[in-house]
Amino acid sequence: MQLIADNLHIIRPDIQTAVDEKNPGPVREMVKQCMAAGADGMDINSGPLRRDPEGAMTFLVETVKQETQGPLLLDTTNPKAIRAGLKAAGGRAIINGISPEPAKLEHILPLAAEFDVPVIGYLLNEAGHVPASEAEGYDIALALLNAAESAGLAGRQLMIDPIVAPLMWESGTAHNRDILSLIRNLPDVLGYPVKTIAGVSNLTTGNAPAAKKRLMEAAFLPMLVDAGLDMALLNVFHESTVRLARACDLLTEGSLFSWAAVPRPD
Amino acid sequence: MQLIADNLHIIRPDIQTAVDEKNPGPVREMVKQCMAAGADGMDINSGPLRRDPEGAMTFLVETVKQETQGPLLLDTTNPKAIRAGLKAAGGRAIINGISPEPAKLEHILPLAAEFDVPVIGYLLNEAGHVPASEAEGYDIALALLNAAESAGLAGRQLMIDPIVAPLMWESGTAHNRDILSLIRNLPDVLGYPVKTIAGVSNLTTGNAPAAKKRLMEAAFLPMLVDAGLDMALLNVFHESTVRLARACDLLTEGSLFSWAAVPRPD
Repeated sequence: MQLIADNLHIIRPDIQTAVDEKNPGPVREMVKQCMAAGADGMDINSGPLRRDPEGAMTFLVETVKQETQGPLLLDTTNPKAIRAGLKAAGGRAIINGISPEPAKLEHILPLAAEFDVPVIGYLLNEAGHVPASEAEGYDIALALLNAAESAGLAGRQLMIDPIVAPLMWESGTAHNRDILSLIRNLPDVLGYPVKTIAGVSNLTTGNAPAAKKRLMEAAFLPMLVDAGLDMALLNVFHESTVRLARACDLLTEGSLFSWAAVPRPD
Repeated sequence: MQLIADNLHIIRPDIQTAVDEKNPGPVREMVKQCMAAGADGMDINSGPLRRDPEGAMTFLVETVKQETQGPLLLDTTNPKAIRAGLKAAGGRAIINGISPEPAKLEHILPLAAEFDVPVIGYLLNEAGHVPASEAEGYDIALALLNAAESAGLAGRQLMIDPIVAPLMWESGTAHNRDILSLIRNLPDVLGYPVKTIAGVSNLTTGNAPAAKKRLMEAAFLPMLVDAGLDMALLNVFHESTVRLARACDLLTEGSLFSWAAVPRPD
């Protein structure tokens, strides 16, 4: 499973300032730290970028790609920013992402076809809500696949994010059991080896002690790995979570097990 | 999921001496500590009990049952000891267990029928080896069910232990992926809501640093819970593993999630 850092986020004041000033230092430093912490790739969460979307995303992608060889997720709702990011990324980009919302299907999906890159489809209904049942999740996935094919994408360009629910939601744990099943079954339902991604940090959104949040991450992450998740989007500075993800890989990747490969706390 | 302590074991010199001297103190203390650590029940691993099997098992069961209200697993290959334990346990016993080995089917299985208690069937072939494939696992489970029905047991008296393999075995991780699938599918294959049990301590048998062993337990346990495991047999003095098991329950048990219910390190 690939670990994608969700740490590079425009809501951080130092990142916002770096973008405003086109100062690569803080961005580069953040990416370096994420890679050192075990990230395989970076989510570039630039927000909607109302001012200078092209310039800002070009700056971010140019800066980030110097510090990692891994995937670069363009995490914005702004199609102009996405186009600029795709031009700068040189084929390593993943569009993050689309939902069945008409504006996204119309303005973002065609960019995936034009630049021949993967695009992440969120399992959200047109009202922007998580599906009320596992069955509705498959319906949404099929609708996204239809839209992707109509836009000229090859089927396997569509990745799926089934949307991890915060535990504090009333139906959060039921929904999260559904998404394990969705991750397991989507390849059969959609008819190709669907790559899946999930935002692990969503699980513990809200106010709770950090140790309890880490414990719930530790309980859920191995279930996601066992279900077949391909990419986890997470705070890679959670050392214990990163170690656990690597341990899960040793159980699921099929190569010969060796204790030497098991990470240990320093 | 119920946690069954595997800590009460005759290979411990203090327990062996307590059994020899019929001194309940050390046994009672061990059970108290296990219950305080979070055990829901006790595995009474008395070994083969070649001397005085009835007296020894009666002593153990009488002593243990005063300190727990939970299930008492009679973990011996000696049918005389099992019979004595069943008499002493007053309906709370589970026979642990049988395999397709003819001697066990002949001498142990009928006791489950006579005393109307659950019996754990190990997915081992007649040579005593773990199955070479998931398919062989189902074959063994079906053979055990046939034997159980021939012995007059109601189907659902047969529990299944799919046998966790040590990671250090050459095919250990592949086998352990198979058992997740077996746990998930046995109810469909056997045609009743099969209760399953797995020995988590087996996973990390052998020589490796304790921190690495705990990490691999932490990676595998949530996968077992998600697969539907009913009972985990484990060292309940591994605090972090017990906490994680409780966290997994919060994700899978379907009741309303509350951060207050999440265990935290002291």
